[in-house]
Amino acid sequence: MERLRIAIAGLGTVGRGTARILLEDAALLETRTGVSVELAGVCARDRAKPRGVELNGLIWYDAPLDMASDPGVDVVVELIGGAEGPARQLCEAALAAGKHVVTANKALIASHGVALARLAEENGVELRFEAAVAGGIPLIKVLREGLGANRISWLAGILNGTCNFILTEMERTRRDFAAVLEEAQQLGYAEADPTFDIDGIDTAHKLAILTSLAFGTPVDMQGVYAEGIRHIRLTDLDFAQNLGYRIKLLGISGILDGRVAQTVHPVMVRADQPLAAVNGPFNAVEISGGRAGRVVIEGAGAGELPTASAVVADIADIARGNRVPAFNQPVATLRPLPAADLDAIENAFYLRLNVIDRPGVVADVSAIMKAQQISIESLHQRSRKPGEPVNLVLTTHMSQEGAMRRALAALAALDCVLEQPVMIRIVDL
Amino acid sequence: MERLRIAIAGLGTVGRGTARILLEDAALLETRTGVSVELAGVCARDRAKPRGVELNGLIWYDAPLDMASDPGVDVVVELIGGAEGPARQLCEAALAAGKHVVTANKALIASHGVALARLAEENGVELRFEAAVAGGIPLIKVLREGLGANRISWLAGILNGTCNFILTEMERTRRDFAAVLEEAQQLGYAEADPTFDIDGIDTAHKLAILTSLAFGTPVDMQGVYAEGIRHIRLTDLDFAQNLGYRIKLLGISGILDGRVAQTVHPVMVRADQPLAAVNGPFNAVEISGGRAGRVVIEGAGAGELPTASAVVADIADIARGNRVPAFNQPVATLRPLPAADLDAIENAFYLRLNVIDRPGVVADVSAIMKAQQISIESLHQRSRKPGEPVNLVLTTHMSQEGAMRRALAALAALDCVLEQPVMIRIVDL
Repeated sequence: MERLRIAIAGLGTVGRGTARILLEDAALLETRTGVSVELAGVCARDRAKPRGVELNGLIWYDAPLDMASDPGVDVVVELIGGAEGPARQLCEAALAAGKHVVTANKALIASHGVALARLAEENGVELRFEAAVAGGIPLIKVLREGLGANRISWLAGILNGTCNFILTEMERTRRDFAAVLEEAQQLGYAEADPTFDIDGIDTAHKLAILTSLAFGTPVDMQGVYAEGIRHIRLTDLDFAQNLGYRIKLLGISGILDGRVAQTVHPVMVRADQPLAAVNGPFNAVEISGGRAGRVVIEGAGAGELPTASAVVADIADIARGNRVPAFNQPVATLRPLPAADLDAIENAFYLRLNVIDRPGVVADVSAIMKAQQISIESLHQRSRKPGEPVNLVLTTHMSQEGAMRRALAALAALDCVLEQPVMIRIVDL
Repeated sequence: MERLRIAIAGLGTVGRGTARILLEDAALLETRTGVSVELAGVCARDRAKPRGVELNGLIWYDAPLDMASDPGVDVVVELIGGAEGPARQLCEAALAAGKHVVTANKALIASHGVALARLAEENGVELRFEAAVAGGIPLIKVLREGLGANRISWLAGILNGTCNFILTEMERTRRDFAAVLEEAQQLGYAEADPTFDIDGIDTAHKLAILTSLAFGTPVDMQGVYAEGIRHIRLTDLDFAQNLGYRIKLLGISGILDGRVAQTVHPVMVRADQPLAAVNGPFNAVEISGGRAGRVVIEGAGAGELPTASAVVADIADIARGNRVPAFNQPVATLRPLPAADLDAIENAFYLRLNVIDRPGVVADVSAIMKAQQISIESLHQRSRKPGEPVNLVLTTHMSQEGAMRRALAALAALDCVLEQPVMIRIVDL
């Protein structure tokens, strides 16, 4: 029987899970692929650390790069992380040495995916990264193969489980952002430095990868506009609910007049839409595929075994001999698309102003909206005592983002407006 | 450039859509697969019928079997339909002649899929049927490849768009089953003879296919217990809503103590579950995959272009040279599993009895439930005038299906019970 020998670099959560599945389900994988899929070796910083998986009898590589030069290795699984350094070097060396590479590293793929895909093509091997986006959800396979007969028009996704956990937990426990973030950190859903997650950078990495797969363009991380969820308060979640929406951090990418728009920001989604119903640390993506109509796929966006299951699915594909260009078409055929003018995107908007409750406030605010030709749909004021701060909430009809930005700047400059106004786009998926 | 020449047998809705995508998106498919995917010929009963797609210049085969013997054809797309006759003959002949076969024919795959898969293996070609289950949703790919590193524990799905349309429309328009079925027939969502859809047979075909893919067993249509939706009344949908559920026709398959259970019947699903939110003619499936956790995928379960998109995705896979055993593992390794004892399955139950409203009814009913050791969770009676028929609704705690069947028989025999009682399982997904 044919053999496929695997080496794993990095034995963190996902590396451990991958080793465990390869060891425990070797017989299943052999039945399904017709190939003996063997874990040959591993590499991790600390050899002595207990990992709950039996690694005796495997090769321990002193350095990741040693895997790339070992003729006994067919597939290198890169789970070190980071866009540069050892992760990048390992992938480059492994591909150059004619080994398949499977990685869960979204930062690496977002930054250097296309160059690595070219290297894979030149060496006739696979570069696979199902685990880099949406964990256990086979999203990349769905986009690249399952919907292969479609020209995707847009996609929108909850791609960061930490943010979705925080937003859901704020609603559920009626606590504000800071308290829930602290809890998420204690539970291990958020990092000690949460910037990467809560400022939308992680979502942006994933979105840039999906954009490339969906639209046949090179990955363009710089082209993603990203805003996070730090400014969302419980009161915004409450207003959203009363207005018939839920707030989700969405990555959205689409084609507008031949230009590509990639945005990451909180969105008010109508409560009856599938993405609105996704709670806790789950991920979900809605894809509008020209022919197939809308497809929604939901599942575990992170976690040891779900993410490892995606890594092993890539390995099984390689074992079966299945080959797909990393970005759905050969690198030479990827065509950069001009970036859409984000200021021209039209949405309805939610606006919350913390104002001093005194006569004339609504007149001042409405005058600014009128000057930008933004039509107000509704206005809500939860009155406290006169002279004290109060939330003034507006929703608008469809307006251009640019006009809203100018209005926001003018509103922030009003004497009666006490804090930076909160603006959330109401997106009709 | 390599060429892949396609012949389509059957130019109904899906055949037309497939031809259209192959013709309109030839360049896209070539970019993605690196192969020139060419529609070479077609076969349909009526050559003159207008189909809104340009078929001039293609070969017209007089009989489907002529495709199988044409050396100029690489892939035969069978869209004739039916488990026997020309569809089966064509697939057998094409595979035997070393041609790949793509089909949307669930009846054929449910009845003869394993024999056809064996023939495909013997001839080194692919048998593909993504379009046979859940239309435009790439469900088979998700199950077979995306979750390839998982031992699935169970799956549950809304697999028949007609039934889901009828149930949703009954709720939305507050009309009863018969009226909405008539509307569905006029809209083309239901056939003139709706038996196949509304009695759960179509769902059973699809479920049997999914069961085989998920659990590595031969397809076993006979092993599916199927009940349809004819007996569901608007009043049941109303009671469900008040109890916090929605009623869906689900195909459910799972492993219980090494035995496989395949059931198709209406289910009360908790309203906050993803499957409860699927409306209209859509399909959705929830898969609980050992490693990946739960994955839910939703989309268009039927329709010209969604289904054709699945057919063309199979063709694109074949063009890329990707090979997967039809039932996820070689036919010789499929292992029949004993059928679970359905009477031993435990669920909560909803029971609606149309009774004469007179003293002692509740006592009679409770005595029967007690005799079967079924514990009543709640009891609701919408009173009309004494002596007139009234709905007596019960929900039970977890009980065995067998006990409930015996109770049902005893209840139906009571003098005060006027119609066949309606029983709906309350399933905790």
